[in-house]
Amino acid sequence: MIVFLPYGRRLKASKNETLLKVASKGGIEIQSLCGGRGLCGRCKVIVREGNENLSPFTEPEEKILTKKELLEGYRLACQTRVIRKREIKIEIPAESRLDKQRLLEEGVERSIQLKPAVKKIVLTLRSPTLKDVKPDVERLLEKIQEKTGREPKICYETLKSVPLALREGGWTVTITLWLEKEVICVEAGERKRGIYGLAVDIGTTKLAVYLTDLESGRTIATASDMNPQILYGEDVISRISFISEKISNLKILQRTIVKGINNLITEVCNKARIKNSEICDMTVVGNTAMHHIFLGVPPKYISLSPYPAVIGSSVNIRARDLGVKINKGAYIHVLPVIAGFVGADAVADILATGIHESKEKSMLIDIGTNTEIVLSDGKDLYACSCASGPAFEGAHIAHGIRAVEGAIERV
Amino acid sequence: MIVFLPYGRRLKASKNETLLKVASKGGIEIQSLCGGRGLCGRCKVIVREGNENLSPFTEPEEKILTKKELLEGYRLACQTRVIRKREIKIEIPAESRLDKQRLLEEGVERSIQLKPAVKKIVLTLRSPTLKDVKPDVERLLEKIQEKTGREPKICYETLKSVPLALREGGWTVTITLWLEKEVICVEAGERKRGIYGLAVDIGTTKLAVYLTDLESGRTIATASDMNPQILYGEDVISRISFISEKISNLKILQRTIVKGINNLITEVCNKARIKNSEICDMTVVGNTAMHHIFLGVPPKYISLSPYPAVIGSSVNIRARDLGVKINKGAYIHVLPVIAGFVGADAVADILATGIHESKEKSMLIDIGTNTEIVLSDGKDLYACSCASGPAFEGAHIAHGIRAVEGAIERV
Repeated sequence: MIVFLPYGRRLKASKNETLLKVASKGGIEIQSLCGGRGLCGRCKVIVREGNENLSPFTEPEEKILTKKELLEGYRLACQTRVIRKREIKIEIPAESRLDKQRLLEEGVERSIQLKPAVKKIVLTLRSPTLKDVKPDVERLLEKIQEKTGREPKICYETLKSVPLALREGGWTVTITLWLEKEVICVEAGERKRGIYGLAVDIGTTKLAVYLTDLESGRTIATASDMNPQILYGEDVISRISFISEKISNLKILQRTIVKGINNLITEVCNKARIKNSEICDMTVVGNTAMHHIFLGVPPKYISLSPYPAVIGSSVNIRARDLGVKINKGAYIHVLPVIAGFVGADAVADILATGIHESKEKSMLIDIGTNTEIVLSDGKDLYACSCASGPAFEGAHIAHGIRAVEGAIERV
Repeated sequence: MIVFLPYGRRLKASKNETLLKVASKGGIEIQSLCGGRGLCGRCKVIVREGNENLSPFTEPEEKILTKKELLEGYRLACQTRVIRKREIKIEIPAESRLDKQRLLEEGVERSIQLKPAVKKIVLTLRSPTLKDVKPDVERLLEKIQEKTGREPKICYETLKSVPLALREGGWTVTITLWLEKEVICVEAGERKRGIYGLAVDIGTTKLAVYLTDLESGRTIATASDMNPQILYGEDVISRISFISEKISNLKILQRTIVKGINNLITEVCNKARIKNSEICDMTVVGNTAMHHIFLGVPPKYISLSPYPAVIGSSVNIRARDLGVKINKGAYIHVLPVIAGFVGADAVADILATGIHESKEKSMLIDIGTNTEIVLSDGKDLYACSCASGPAFEGAHIAHGIRAVEGAIERV
């Protein structure tokens, strides 16, 4: 049996069949320009498990694959034959796929009142003299207090940039203030350019980011991809099992999702032609397992009765502490979770739809790899969740097709 | 002219003389068991500057020096000859020195009232049930509030360890609380063992650490060494010049001092037979330049009129953000500085002597590479500082000897 990732398709293989053939018989289209002669190098796949059940490298593979690719387990699907019919796991990297996963990333935007957590303020200070040698940071904080009436702290990374910014800007700087209580960025001179925020949805299967202009409230670019953790299990339970094997696996899954988010950040920044450092705020939602893994918090016990979460309240954490590449001083706000299996994504659903303010009986259904249902009786909210991936996302389906190009999307 | 570091001795060399000979004529004793025949490998030195003015490697050197040592610029002093009388800088690493720098690390202890910033509290929680699935962290924080009346936060690194600690300890844990406002450590079960603090003095020339039992207030181990930054300049001005050349040099000097502190931490922990992670608090003092460099804050402007410091107030920073190897959640408290050239060390002097509480005219003098003088008129304090290294620490002296073994210490 060969499992093809990231689709989760399990296909039977005959002895001596090439991986390209097996995939193609099962409806999985891998790029191939040379008709399987090992010349074009378009059908690269990665062997994740069961290498010992495959034929040895061929001459074309040794010629086409780079040393780095060889170390990472790459093969050419047209050259690699099944020699033993055991369990084999093959990943088809994005560049080798003919189809493209169709992911929903648009939605209806509700009009809301803008109240961003970050704002920019331009300040002009008096330079120090021999009679007034107040230190740079105290000089800046005093000016902020004078202008805003607030007494914010300054974050350590930002503090380091103060002396140069003050002098480069001729004692005029633009500060970015987070929740009126912390200076998270100090730039030389007047920086009137926009200030951006990022909303991130970590789904079990899908990862989506939305770049927002915090002055206008407009979503100016979106990007999405498969959740790259899918290599380590298709559903939350199998990923939690993977982590339970060895605690270092938690780091692997955390790094995988952070890397996926960073890729999408690069994509939206390129689309909007801004720099990563211009993103000064970020909000993350996900089910409880995705939430815990993103934070590097062990999710083991949410899969064991009585299924308690590790942390329920919202978390503000510095982007750089997680390796997320936005402004160095920026915080990531992670929404609260409701229970072990009703996560921050459900909280976001509630806020986005406003069901919590509804006076009528209403129901909210969020169908994904896990489906969450929230019922309002006009007063209280009741929430529950269950796995729906196998039915709706096409994992392990024998007939039919996943939401890829070629499937019917609209009639 | 050859400069021998870390002594700062400048010695004249004749053409064709070995480094061992030059050092020995100048009273600097380098280990040598084989009498300069290149057999024992004890006279290793490191060439820091002027390599082109020295003879090529000899056969014994190629035999004795490891590849790593070659890459780091090591030579055997007995094999290396001066071929051009230009500027050469040679470092004598600790293991090659015959003498040992004598550093003062004892002092008079004043009796003070103990009020440590950290304390341990043992808590026993009820385990979650299907009727009470409160998340682990909220469960813990609620118990803390119940027991202490405080509502502390929990630090992110510590948060990750909560689920395992709770279950390993059978729902009994020992928490470490910082300033009653943050949980910085959670350990499984009852941990009655001591809680330790570290005082660190970063002198321009000398680095000293004092390990303190925060329950008894006793200093239980001390260790000191030369400030390893001395390789990059003997006084603060030359180190600031080094940083002003290239901003990445600031990172080099910061890492150097952190590495030096980590070495001394290992030393005191070994002496006291405790683990690094048992140190849950740390206080650092130093003159303004050492203070800024330790924090990674550019010190350039404190050497330029009107000599403003970058930050004057005290700083609490997480040890792990600086790479200091004590408890992961522990904070480092850096004392405030008074001005560009009157630093946190002077503040510590004032606090330690209590001169600020004195009703009489009194004077405090701290002689080091820089000397600070504080005068009290019974009401106000006046402070100043000047460089005294060349006079008192033996830098560049032509006659006499530095405070090394062999110098008269007591009669």
